[in-house]
Amino acid sequence: MNPIRVTIWNEYRHEREDERYRAVYPDGIHGAIAQGLGLESGFTIRTATLDEPENGLPEDVLMETDVLLWWGHKAHEEVDEETVNRVQGRVLHGMGLVVLHSGHHSKIFRRLMGTSANLIWRVADELERIWVVAPSHPIARGLDRYIEIEREEMYGEFFDVPPPDELVFISWFPGGEVFRSGCCYTRGSGKIFYFRPGHESYPTFYNPDVRKVIANAVRWAAPTDGPPRVFGNQAALPSG
Amino acid sequence: MNPIRVTIWNEYRHEREDERYRAVYPDGIHGAIAQGLGLESGFTIRTATLDEPENGLPEDVLMETDVLLWWGHKAHEEVDEETVNRVQGRVLHGMGLVVLHSGHHSKIFRRLMGTSANLIWRVADELERIWVVAPSHPIARGLDRYIEIEREEMYGEFFDVPPPDELVFISWFPGGEVFRSGCCYTRGSGKIFYFRPGHESYPTFYNPDVRKVIANAVRWAAPTDGPPRVFGNQAALPSG
Amino acid sequence: MNPIRVTIWNEYRHEREDERYRAVYPDGIHGAIAQGLGLESGFTIRTATLDEPENGLPEDVLMETDVLLWWGHKAHEEVDEETVNRVQGRVLHGMGLVVLHSGHHSKIFRRLMGTSANLIWRVADELERIWVVAPSHPIARGLDRYIEIEREEMYGEFFDVPPPDELVFISWFPGGEVFRSGCCYTRGSGKIFYFRPGHESYPTFYNPDVRKVIANAVRWAAPTDGPPRVFGNQAALPSG
Amino acid sequence: MNPIRVTIWNEYRHEREDERYRAVYPDGIHGAIAQGLGLESGFTIRTATLDEPENGLPEDVLMETDVLLWWGHKAHEEVDEETVNRVQGRVLHGMGLVVLHSGHHSKIFRRLMGTSANLIWRVADELERIWVVAPSHPIARGLDRYIEIEREEMYGEFFDVPPPDELVFISWFPGGEVFRSGCCYTRGSGKIFYFRPGHESYPTFYNPDVRKVIANAVRWAAPTDGPPRVFGNQAALPSG
Repeated sequence: MNPIRVTIWNEYRHEREDERYRAVYPDGIHGAIAQGLGLESGFTIRTATLDEPENGLPEDVLMETDVLLWWGHKAHEEVDEETVNRVQGRVLHGMGLVVLHSGHHSKIFRRLMGTSANLIWRVADELERIWVVAPSHPIARGLDRYIEIEREEMYGEFFDVPPPDELVFISWFPGGEVFRSGCCYTRGSGKIFYFRPGHESYPTFYNPDVRKVIANAVRWAAPTDGPPRVFGNQAALPSG
Repeated sequence: MNPIRVTIWNEYRHEREDERYRAVYPDGIHGAIAQGLGLESGFTIRTATLDEPENGLPEDVLMETDVLLWWGHKAHEEVDEETVNRVQGRVLHGMGLVVLHSGHHSKIFRRLMGTSANLIWRVADELERIWVVAPSHPIARGLDRYIEIEREEMYGEFFDVPPPDELVFISWFPGGEVFRSGCCYTRGSGKIFYFRPGHESYPTFYNPDVRKVIANAVRWAAPTDGPPRVFGNQAALPSG
Repeated sequence: MNPIRVTIWNEYRHEREDERYRAVYPDGIHGAIAQGLGLESGFTIRTATLDEPENGLPEDVLMETDVLLWWGHKAHEEVDEETVNRVQGRVLHGMGLVVLHSGHHSKIFRRLMGTSANLIWRVADELERIWVVAPSHPIARGLDRYIEIEREEMYGEFFDVPPPDELVFISWFPGGEVFRSGCCYTRGSGKIFYFRPGHESYPTFYNPDVRKVIANAVRWAAPTDGPPRVFGNQAALPSG
Repeated sequence: MNPIRVTIWNEYRHEREDERYRAVYPDGIHGAIAQGLGLESGFTIRTATLDEPENGLPEDVLMETDVLLWWGHKAHEEVDEETVNRVQGRVLHGMGLVVLHSGHHSKIFRRLMGTSANLIWRVADELERIWVVAPSHPIARGLDRYIEIEREEMYGEFFDVPPPDELVFISWFPGGEVFRSGCCYTRGSGKIFYFRPGHESYPTFYNPDVRKVIANAVRWAAPTDGPPRVFGNQAALPSG
């Protein structure tokens, strides 16, 4: 089996501009994710960041990407419309997309969802307990019945996304909220997974269970060799 | 519009056998639910209980029932197989079914789900906060973004039911659990709603929001005048 | 119960520009749909067309619309981005949207779906047989097990839309194709229904079953009085 | 990766009792399926049939089975209730189940679905064209946009099963019917796939595309190493 070609996209502003976040992610959030994925076999990994030419995602990079990971937060608006168009086109043609945490507000995720992707939130160093509600799902492989993250930002319902095709995780927060924190979608020939945790001020992307989920999600979202895309005017077929 | 003919089925053992529960529900759990539904217009209401002949659900009662509500707990095994067969048949032909709280372990709910309907639980006088995650769903009509019940039994994931066709509510409990507490299913021409709260020791069925959900669920589950059920060997149809 | 306020939007170019289509729809496609809905009670109906100011859908019209119907075909690109933004915003806040036939390629439908909404098609005067696969769904109310339309344009799979939350109809065509022709979605607090038939050259919108489906869809898509939309930073809630 | 342990269960009456079917499947339907799966790597295959002790599925066989395939037709009622109980239990604990053709009426499929699994049918040597409607699904891997089977029995809607979690295929028949012919479900920790074609009088299980679908389905349904099943009374968890 060929390795899955992964591109980890990170906005990469927090870590460059603020030493508090750089202290947590000295190699950037993308670096920490790449390190985690690199512990497993079966992936070839590259990274891309907002301030690179064409937002780091020119056509040739996307054509060589099986699964794209996306982390962004404060500069969503700076992503070019052309980049969003290219990524959307590739997803419809089969590229997987794994959207992490504050990536819920990215242009590409909102584009693919058709909704605001708004939610409620609070930064208060709270425990997050992520319950598995789809035990047979490949993204839950190797997990216990819940994941705990010692300190995280809270995201709560209502989360303005379409009802997920498959709901894998629900988060619990001590402040009283719940959140659909692992949501699967398909768009065209592509698979999309949204995974909630990963605030820039917490070491979430070093957490072994979070890393396991991300690796599972990449494998799940990798393109299958599905039917060709055929559209437009077509002659009638034989009736046998 | 004709009124919806509702039959409220209650095991009715706790309230007869234990004065602690009778103190909460002097007219039985079915009585409290009937009282709540009776505050709204558009329903004709009857009740039925386990120890009546044919478990209170002979063929003629079921034929005159649009939506059946089900509360049971300690005597699930005493429900006759024939009763379960009759109810299942009626659901497939269009009767709605609203299953309440410990009814998750009833024979009829397990029969229709195909699973164990097991879960985790704890009786510890805990707050339950029930979040709406499907704001456009008719069962969420008239609610705020969450319902609070001051004291309830906890039910937690994993809840061994099929992924709901529509997930309307997720519960939060202070002990650290979440639960898919409002689950919609269809089976045949019938609609099924499972609603979590309603332990026998708490006055949950007097709660105005719980009553609102139950009334909404009855309206949602009421049969539509759908297509006839046609099965078996059929001749080819014209091709135009 | 208050009447449902319906706005029927039609591109209204075919019928004005080509007498073949005007012969079929002398009052426009919107006129035929309005006439059909008007045969039932419970609706207040207005129409809007592309070439009116603000595409016939200024803010005040949308604010007074419970359910918007959408038919367009050859001038999708002429719909202003601002119009699409307004309609999307209203859907997320609860307005229903019923998209008809070639409206699959409208900006608003693609915006809400996140996909190309491409499909295969053929204009060959073919019979369409539309099978009900969700007999308990309110949109199937009053139908037989299938609808037949004597002559229609063919649409076939793959239809590039997200998997519908509820699939109500599947179409059969004599040329050998199938199509998911009745698809329910929710976006935000709004409900969306896509219904396949309705080519400009056929009298589909006079068909009594098609009219029944449209009326059912409008009732299904009408806003419920759901929870308020609350987003943003929130304080922790009490734990009971 | 360990091979997937597959058990192919066949009623095995038609082929023994009637030479017309034996002519098509001299090694039994299970033999033809086993031959097809054997062409690919990654499986260890055994077969089991109705008339073996414990219906060929004693506890130890099921415990060593990752995915069970099921073909039955005329002797559904002769499958022991105990066998059905054992299989259902194993599915809930993670064993995959692939139900083929007339297996729709098997006790185990009806048990897991909660419905009658009734449908309409006709034996008339008709072409079946099976359209892929979920191009990103692993079960569609390697297929073209549709599969054609030269001669098959017709199955048509309404198919009385719960709405599938994922709908992969829709069949077209020249006699005018459609059918949801590739349906995915989850029950407990187990995955279930129903696949329509495979009448005893046609050589369907030698068809390369059908074999591809079955191999894909086995891989999809194979158990993941998911969370443990924990149920019952539980203490509160720490709040961080």
